[in-house]
Amino acid sequence: MTEHSLWRFSRALQRALNDHQFDDLANMIDDEVEWAIYGPIDMFPFLGARKGKAAALEVCRQLADNVSVRRYDREAIMLGVDSASSMLRYSFTALDSHKPISLRLAEFLQFKNGKLTSLRVLLDTFDLVEQALGQPIKLPKIA
Amino acid sequence: MTEHSLWRFSRALQRALNDHQFDDLANMIDDEVEWAIYGPIDMFPFLGARKGKAAALEVCRQLADNVSVRRYDREAIMLGVDSASSMLRYSFTALDSHKPISLRLAEFLQFKNGKLTSLRVLLDTFDLVEQALGQPIKLPKIA
Repeated sequence: MTEHSLWRFSRALQRALNDHQFDDLANMIDDEVEWAIYGPIDMFPFLGARKGKAAALEVCRQLADNVSVRRYDREAIMLGVDSASSMLRYSFTALDSHKPISLRLAEFLQFKNGKLTSLRVLLDTFDLVEQALGQPIKLPKIA
Repeated sequence: MTEHSLWRFSRALQRALNDHQFDDLANMIDDEVEWAIYGPIDMFPFLGARKGKAAALEVCRQLADNVSVRRYDREAIMLGVDSASSMLRYSFTALDSHKPISLRLAEFLQFKNGKLTSLRVLLDTFDLVEQALGQPIKLPKIA
């Protein structure tokens, strides 16, 4: 039984983000990957949609320049033959301010021949923005 | 082959939200359901964690009082024997203002004996807040 691509991808991503070693990750990303991390791109230019391996790796380099991963916990996971989805709670450290950032996200991944062909990530973006600003945004109650 | 619980749940939810008919939904929710829609509860009191069928149904009633669903598209989906995950793009109408709200979300569901025992939903919350406010929130560029 072969190890699921999700585990190899997760290790390679962790190694890229925390050790700035991108070779394993590059080997796991399909040349034509469809990549999207949905969120406010004005504040976080590394969010948004990308097409192709070079663009996806550049996003990971920017992430690695901005945060390190302290830990993550998988709160839900589903594995298919060539696909995976997961809800995770990540604890990052912002490298410039050394501030902790705690973030829930959902990822939907597709693989083909052991390479990532599609990544879609949804973030709890309001929570992220407030933590990055370092202060709450005042909201009206609407319901 | 039995229909997957996801499809029954989706129809029941749609019927609850748009037609205010809650019987099918009530029949599909386990008495001890664990329920969480992550987001800013100060602005949207129907978000957050709930425990048990009555509390979950109350959330759905509040949702039905605030929005109707115009359409939704599943951008990714995974089905297990008793579980499902999906990334969706919803188009709502806010019932008070008649404003359209377009929202991407990820859901992770677990079922047991055809009843929902766990629901976790992640929203693109910043996008939601901006649409509910009716104006963009000015953000600094941080990276």
